[in-house]
Amino acid sequence: MTIRRYTLTISCPDRTGIIAAVSGFIAQHGGFIVEASYHTEQEAQRFFMRQEIRADSLPFDAAEFHRRFSALSDEFNMDWQLSDSALKKRLVVLVSKQDHCLDDLLHRWRSGELQVDIPCVISNHEDLRSFVEWHGIPFIHVDMANKEAAFQRISALFEEYRGDAMVLARFMQILPPWLCQRYPGRVINIHHSFLPSFVGAKPYHQAYQRGVKLIGATCHYVTDELDAGPIIEQDTVRIDHGDTVDDLVRYGRDIEKTVLSRGLRYHVEDRVLVCGNKTIVFR
Amino acid sequence: MTIRRYTLTISCPDRTGIIAAVSGFIAQHGGFIVEASYHTEQEAQRFFMRQEIRADSLPFDAAEFHRRFSALSDEFNMDWQLSDSALKKRLVVLVSKQDHCLDDLLHRWRSGELQVDIPCVISNHEDLRSFVEWHGIPFIHVDMANKEAAFQRISALFEEYRGDAMVLARFMQILPPWLCQRYPGRVINIHHSFLPSFVGAKPYHQAYQRGVKLIGATCHYVTDELDAGPIIEQDTVRIDHGDTVDDLVRYGRDIEKTVLSRGLRYHVEDRVLVCGNKTIVFR
Amino acid sequence: MTIRRYTLTISCPDRTGIIAAVSGFIAQHGGFIVEASYHTEQEAQRFFMRQEIRADSLPFDAAEFHRRFSALSDEFNMDWQLSDSALKKRLVVLVSKQDHCLDDLLHRWRSGELQVDIPCVISNHEDLRSFVEWHGIPFIHVDMANKEAAFQRISALFEEYRGDAMVLARFMQILPPWLCQRYPGRVINIHHSFLPSFVGAKPYHQAYQRGVKLIGATCHYVTDELDAGPIIEQDTVRIDHGDTVDDLVRYGRDIEKTVLSRGLRYHVEDRVLVCGNKTIVFR
Amino acid sequence: MTIRRYTLTISCPDRTGIIAAVSGFIAQHGGFIVEASYHTEQEAQRFFMRQEIRADSLPFDAAEFHRRFSALSDEFNMDWQLSDSALKKRLVVLVSKQDHCLDDLLHRWRSGELQVDIPCVISNHEDLRSFVEWHGIPFIHVDMANKEAAFQRISALFEEYRGDAMVLARFMQILPPWLCQRYPGRVINIHHSFLPSFVGAKPYHQAYQRGVKLIGATCHYVTDELDAGPIIEQDTVRIDHGDTVDDLVRYGRDIEKTVLSRGLRYHVEDRVLVCGNKTIVFR
Repeated sequence: MTIRRYTLTISCPDRTGIIAAVSGFIAQHGGFIVEASYHTEQEAQRFFMRQEIRADSLPFDAAEFHRRFSALSDEFNMDWQLSDSALKKRLVVLVSKQDHCLDDLLHRWRSGELQVDIPCVISNHEDLRSFVEWHGIPFIHVDMANKEAAFQRISALFEEYRGDAMVLARFMQILPPWLCQRYPGRVINIHHSFLPSFVGAKPYHQAYQRGVKLIGATCHYVTDELDAGPIIEQDTVRIDHGDTVDDLVRYGRDIEKTVLSRGLRYHVEDRVLVCGNKTIVFR
Repeated sequence: MTIRRYTLTISCPDRTGIIAAVSGFIAQHGGFIVEASYHTEQEAQRFFMRQEIRADSLPFDAAEFHRRFSALSDEFNMDWQLSDSALKKRLVVLVSKQDHCLDDLLHRWRSGELQVDIPCVISNHEDLRSFVEWHGIPFIHVDMANKEAAFQRISALFEEYRGDAMVLARFMQILPPWLCQRYPGRVINIHHSFLPSFVGAKPYHQAYQRGVKLIGATCHYVTDELDAGPIIEQDTVRIDHGDTVDDLVRYGRDIEKTVLSRGLRYHVEDRVLVCGNKTIVFR
Repeated sequence: MTIRRYTLTISCPDRTGIIAAVSGFIAQHGGFIVEASYHTEQEAQRFFMRQEIRADSLPFDAAEFHRRFSALSDEFNMDWQLSDSALKKRLVVLVSKQDHCLDDLLHRWRSGELQVDIPCVISNHEDLRSFVEWHGIPFIHVDMANKEAAFQRISALFEEYRGDAMVLARFMQILPPWLCQRYPGRVINIHHSFLPSFVGAKPYHQAYQRGVKLIGATCHYVTDELDAGPIIEQDTVRIDHGDTVDDLVRYGRDIEKTVLSRGLRYHVEDRVLVCGNKTIVFR
Repeated sequence: MTIRRYTLTISCPDRTGIIAAVSGFIAQHGGFIVEASYHTEQEAQRFFMRQEIRADSLPFDAAEFHRRFSALSDEFNMDWQLSDSALKKRLVVLVSKQDHCLDDLLHRWRSGELQVDIPCVISNHEDLRSFVEWHGIPFIHVDMANKEAAFQRISALFEEYRGDAMVLARFMQILPPWLCQRYPGRVINIHHSFLPSFVGAKPYHQAYQRGVKLIGATCHYVTDELDAGPIIEQDTVRIDHGDTVDDLVRYGRDIEKTVLSRGLRYHVEDRVLVCGNKTIVFR
């Protein structure tokens, strides 16, 4: 991802001529389309598209793109945004004591695979300070004794560090409704079950008791209904009768970090568009 | 599976010396063990084992085995059974209109992959008569207008045809509690979702509405609680936002027949032992 | 797939403006695009696209589409074709004695899942005659004693029955180079290994000897180099040390029919575009 | 894995009575078997078994076990070993510049998931020194300018640090035959393809050129034939035409570390028994 790109994402009421209008606009300015994806959501009668355009193929910058594109976007009643690959998204990461998701995320970040900035890591425990600080990333401890005050502080830190998205990398705390509502489509959680099975606490214990033959993990946007937000990515792994709850937890860690990292990549690359409580993911 | 085998399955309270006692008994009579599997269910403090023994390596038949083994089984308080690969299990198959599971099952039967007898196929519709009869298998239509009478007839047919197991190959009818209770561990269903998600009717519609990223199927023993019996086998398949409910149904058919056929094979080969509401599957 | 559609597939040298030109042409005639996919093959500097258009949204038929589109296709130097969902493709199926792929294919055909015509099934054995004829499909036995004459006959039958594609559903015979060359991109084979591993005969034995931990199957277009043509679809399944060659064959059957059916669907729905020895598959 | 266990692994010529003799020996001393696995390798006519026994259930220690078991092992001509979970295996890890496998391995080590000692990490580059040393593990740079001298030094270091196994975590150097032969079954490599496809250099480029639809990774014991040693574990992941070589490398990293970590766990827990060029893996 070395070539600078603009990523244009659009959703609007479905009708004929949208692709022609948008691709016509881009072609008229010499824009070189690297990747193009389209989808019509039948029930909602809504159209979704995503286009990656080489920045150097356009004769103007993002601000000018906004100006010129607005006539067309008004005509089609579009919700749209243009993101610039040169401006990395800022992920504020929240963790508790378990570090498998954090380790995975920081490795992808320091290897350059995940093209983001991580302005800080917030935790309700001190355990992971040394590991985070080795990466040169500020580590902020927030005391959860007073939950309301703690979440006010977390929200303030998110603003102060200008976070684009808040990543709950096994944070193990339920966010208050006001916080969920303040950042719709910007708080990303990894839940350690194949939702909608095993909502809430101790999903691996629930899975063990039910005797399922696969377990899973779910990456989703957080809404004010617990574990019920739009699903970005999921996966499952086979277990069998010989596996204890501890084995499930161990298998689960691997799938949690895989699913979170895929979900994050889709989010960061503007591949996820939300329609009601569902997502369109242009992979 | 050309060599005749006895399959010995045992469950008993856990203690030391069980394997030694059983394998000692077999060795003492020159028995050649082809496959051996063991499992301790920690919570239940119960031990489970399965052994396949070459029939020609033992100097006596199954009846004599029963006589001689009973002292040992009494000592360890065993639930046990010995099955003979020369006596094929008899599967009575119930279907409705959809034939993907039936087609799959009959193909495995006629190719010799699934070593069972199918004494009859029962259906509440006439649609699949010709296909079943082409195989030389009796096809019996049961009118569901009076449900109670219909299930009485099904139960009577199952007895009359001396069924060992009843296979609900997308039968689409809920069995009455008395029927479930009459044949515990002998009625096998394929449910078209990854249980415990999407219990009951129209699971693919439920999955579509929830926006999950994988769908699944579950093969389980039927109990009198709907879709809540011991799970034998499950699997999932990836879908995406572009898939309609019809696509889910199409993907689902493939996974339903795969999961049912695997679950049936495990059952038929005495690989499934039930412990409470869970299964041990010695693959 | 009840609504009639035109599927437009295009490949041409890559440059800016292709999407705009094509979608502009469609929009200008009121065409409603149901599905749109694009891909640039970097090394070959070639652009590929596929569009499904509702037939009833266009004011003219396929012949008129050809006439009007030709100016544009000339300008961009396009290889292109338009297929009409109302005209089913005709698959001539070749089999030997094993019927798992044939059974799967005919089930999908008679359930309406696979929207094709099957004008005849050709075999070098008589074994599957009754099963094929039960479906009302002509079964033609071709004696392979004289291979050259046999393949001349097969080619003549393919022409006589106006086949669009020849499907080798475990035919177990190597086609002569002249036959491969006569129908490029129209002869589809299922090979029972994960190519390029285990080319040629007895791949399951080869896999067993090598001690691999997964086995696979490959659906590919046939070229005059054995098992080396463009790959359409592949998949793998886990095995372990307990599995014999017979077990591998059994697992393999399931994956062969799955992979063949997916590959066939992609081909039949014009989702496969060939670029050199690789395929673009617009799923 | 908090309870101390002895793991007994045995291979010997196949005959009747082996399980009875071994489990009889264990039962006679009150040994509590936690896990038991058996396998007969048909072609080789060899029997393999693995048993985990609670250490506190036996009235003697490992040395005494050796003494007492030898009569029985002689009688059956057994190759066998007993390992003690209290004595962690020592893994010497070799890396180059890429750190995804190393990061994964060290995370599992510091979280306690992988119960081993890592006495040192050896590399032909300095890049990963800081990360390794943060873990408190010695990092040793070996100059590869003179390959023969370098490998002599590596072998000496392996001895000096009393390594039980040498892990090539993307070391990217071909070991000389004498080194491979010195430590049979003790040098573990992760190869970035689904072997036997794409042996040697740049497997992702080879996979891209061939147009395969899945890529894989293989964990195997190193022998003096390149990428041809006994396979411990493999897995594959789906790619498509839109993926560049860089995408393959990215997907590949995830599967490499997963496959290596599984293979290592099997090895460390004495779950892998070698038979010729194949492995039995008692999962």
